[in-house]
Amino acid sequence: MCPCSPPSSLFHGTKHQSECGRVSPDQGRHGNASCSAGTLVCQAGCVLEELSRHVEERGFIMPLDLGAKGSCHIGGNLATNAGGLRFLRYGSLRGTVLGLEAVLADGTVLNCLMSLRKDNTGYDLKQLFIGSEGTLGVITAVSILCPPKPRAVNVAFLGCPGFAEVLQTFRACRGMLGEILSAFEFMDAACMQLVGSHLRLASPVQESPFYVLVETSGSKAEHDAEKLSSFLEQLLGSGLVTDGTLATDQRKIKALWALRERIAEALSRDGYVYKYDISLPVERLYDLVPDLRARLGPRAKHVVGYGHLGDGNLHLNVTAEAFSAALLGELEPYVYAWTAGQQGSVSAEHGVGFKKRDVLGYSKPPEALRLMQQLKTLLDPKGILNPYKTLPTRA
Amino acid sequence: MCPCSPPSSLFHGTKHQSECGRVSPDQGRHGNASCSAGTLVCQAGCVLEELSRHVEERGFIMPLDLGAKGSCHIGGNLATNAGGLRFLRYGSLRGTVLGLEAVLADGTVLNCLMSLRKDNTGYDLKQLFIGSEGTLGVITAVSILCPPKPRAVNVAFLGCPGFAEVLQTFRACRGMLGEILSAFEFMDAACMQLVGSHLRLASPVQESPFYVLVETSGSKAEHDAEKLSSFLEQLLGSGLVTDGTLATDQRKIKALWALRERIAEALSRDGYVYKYDISLPVERLYDLVPDLRARLGPRAKHVVGYGHLGDGNLHLNVTAEAFSAALLGELEPYVYAWTAGQQGSVSAEHGVGFKKRDVLGYSKPPEALRLMQQLKTLLDPKGILNPYKTLPTRA
Repeated sequence: MCPCSPPSSLFHGTKHQSECGRVSPDQGRHGNASCSAGTLVCQAGCVLEELSRHVEERGFIMPLDLGAKGSCHIGGNLATNAGGLRFLRYGSLRGTVLGLEAVLADGTVLNCLMSLRKDNTGYDLKQLFIGSEGTLGVITAVSILCPPKPRAVNVAFLGCPGFAEVLQTFRACRGMLGEILSAFEFMDAACMQLVGSHLRLASPVQESPFYVLVETSGSKAEHDAEKLSSFLEQLLGSGLVTDGTLATDQRKIKALWALRERIAEALSRDGYVYKYDISLPVERLYDLVPDLRARLGPRAKHVVGYGHLGDGNLHLNVTAEAFSAALLGELEPYVYAWTAGQQGSVSAEHGVGFKKRDVLGYSKPPEALRLMQQLKTLLDPKGILNPYKTLPTRA
Repeated sequence: MCPCSPPSSLFHGTKHQSECGRVSPDQGRHGNASCSAGTLVCQAGCVLEELSRHVEERGFIMPLDLGAKGSCHIGGNLATNAGGLRFLRYGSLRGTVLGLEAVLADGTVLNCLMSLRKDNTGYDLKQLFIGSEGTLGVITAVSILCPPKPRAVNVAFLGCPGFAEVLQTFRACRGMLGEILSAFEFMDAACMQLVGSHLRLASPVQESPFYVLVETSGSKAEHDAEKLSSFLEQLLGSGLVTDGTLATDQRKIKALWALRERIAEALSRDGYVYKYDISLPVERLYDLVPDLRARLGPRAKHVVGYGHLGDGNLHLNVTAEAFSAALLGELEPYVYAWTAGQQGSVSAEHGVGFKKRDVLGYSKPPEALRLMQQLKTLLDPKGILNPYKTLPTRA
């Protein structure tokens, strides 16, 4: 990519800044980034959107993208093991992060800032810091693999008559779009109503019980267009989809993505929001939403479901005029117990923090919680790193 | 996929066997496998090739493939963080393994056998056991994500006039084949000579200093063929490639892969083999081979280089009539120091075992080795798990 030199030394000190590829004029805050051959090496304080711009100018993309890209830092993305919109195609940060530097509780600088795709020299220590939310060490620099920038991106936005049809559309998608499928997101009618009423975003398709956003990313526009149009033809013919629209230009693509990405903003304008971020077997992904509507009745303003269907990740949100302990009592631990009953995860991609630390037991056995606590004690015996977070009060 | 039930309970006991999907009549040895929606859950003793067959019958493939597939166990693949031939496309086991079960040194059964794509409920304990070669626990069951089986697979075998041309061919490949590129392997002329003389495999192309094997895997045969033929046309016209052949049928594809996969066997027939498995920045991947030829002169029978170019992974092998301490002294620590000088890894995908435990310091700083030792002490205080392996004698 750019002719800048790699980190000057992996072992002696932390001089991984480079003159090349400054991603922000505000260097003190964001730090620097360097890159070569699709590998980005940067300081932890770089903002995801600025890194995206930096690598896109050089023919690559970041392997992750999320709604908060304009403000989130790459170090925080790693610390929370962020998922997001490109997970379906490019997978987890556990595979795409090549190295990191972390400062341990005793001040030791742990330099694992490799830029190699393969490295089996002992335990993969960087994994300890990915997703541990700063409780085992503070991530200070990152090396990450960036996929080549796709030459053609298309987005289809579809209306589906039911969730069964959403699932069948996903199956058809995987079969017919195969390697060019880069996102498969869904939202229910309540989500569309909220982005309409609070943000004045109009639905691009006929009113439907469910909506699906399919993104393709490929290297040859004609091939992708052909795959996508035969996919849409088959779908519309089969009744799985009642209406659909296709975007190939950047402006329209952005507008379609906004419908999905701005749901959280619309929810926040609807009232107090009870938020859940769960993983489930994909066939059961939506079951909890109608279940909760029946359970809560008029006590909830809205119960909505949307998320990364391709990853089995549901964002379940309940709004009400104001916070109510009684409503919370209806939701918790009910939602967690229901999720555990499906062998799901009570925290799919948003992390644990202090809010969910005491519900980990719904998704993790006691032996795992005990080992987590032992790791914490080993790495942070005085409990000074991000205290009161991630680990259960009693493990 | 198949209608079998998922692991009956993730938390209560270890009943993850299923009636469905037995992968071997020899159940006692290989255990059972179950599957659903592209996720395979199986016992650690299943043989990789049998698992491949099992999931392929259901429209999926294993995310890893390697020469030893006929004998290696999936548990061992995880324990050594095996790389192999599909790494370029499907990435590391750290991303594709969804869960595992391990037995700890004190007999605790640690059940992290989730089948979810996303799960951020605390530390990702499974990563401790992937690649730690059994020194922290014994992996007893595995849950792994299997990609959809590609409908079209093509292999091109090319002759290149120099290593610079191999690199340029790789760059062209990434650009023109994009998302359908599934392998980019290379071998030098000495490798071809050895598979010819020891195994009677004939080169399918004109004699060249280097050979490249390019594999594509996609969902639409016509599109892939079109991409591949315009790629080959451009390459042959540009002089990057002097000769090439294309295989679309299974038999010929196998024959071309055999040239690459059987190099290790040919080497073992050539005499005593000094083996190195290193990661390097891709531009420097071959430099060490001519360097060593000059250094060793007639003391070596052959010095050959081949490997997974797309992953920056060189298999460097030196053969001699018999083992010689003097020749070993010429090779080590020279090879390790040279690799460290390029910020490379002295063990890319083969692991550490007892042979490389004392050279980890070439790729890892002392702080990392110390933390590795602390983790070992935490999880195996009596040192009973795979002793004398992986960790340096003194860390």
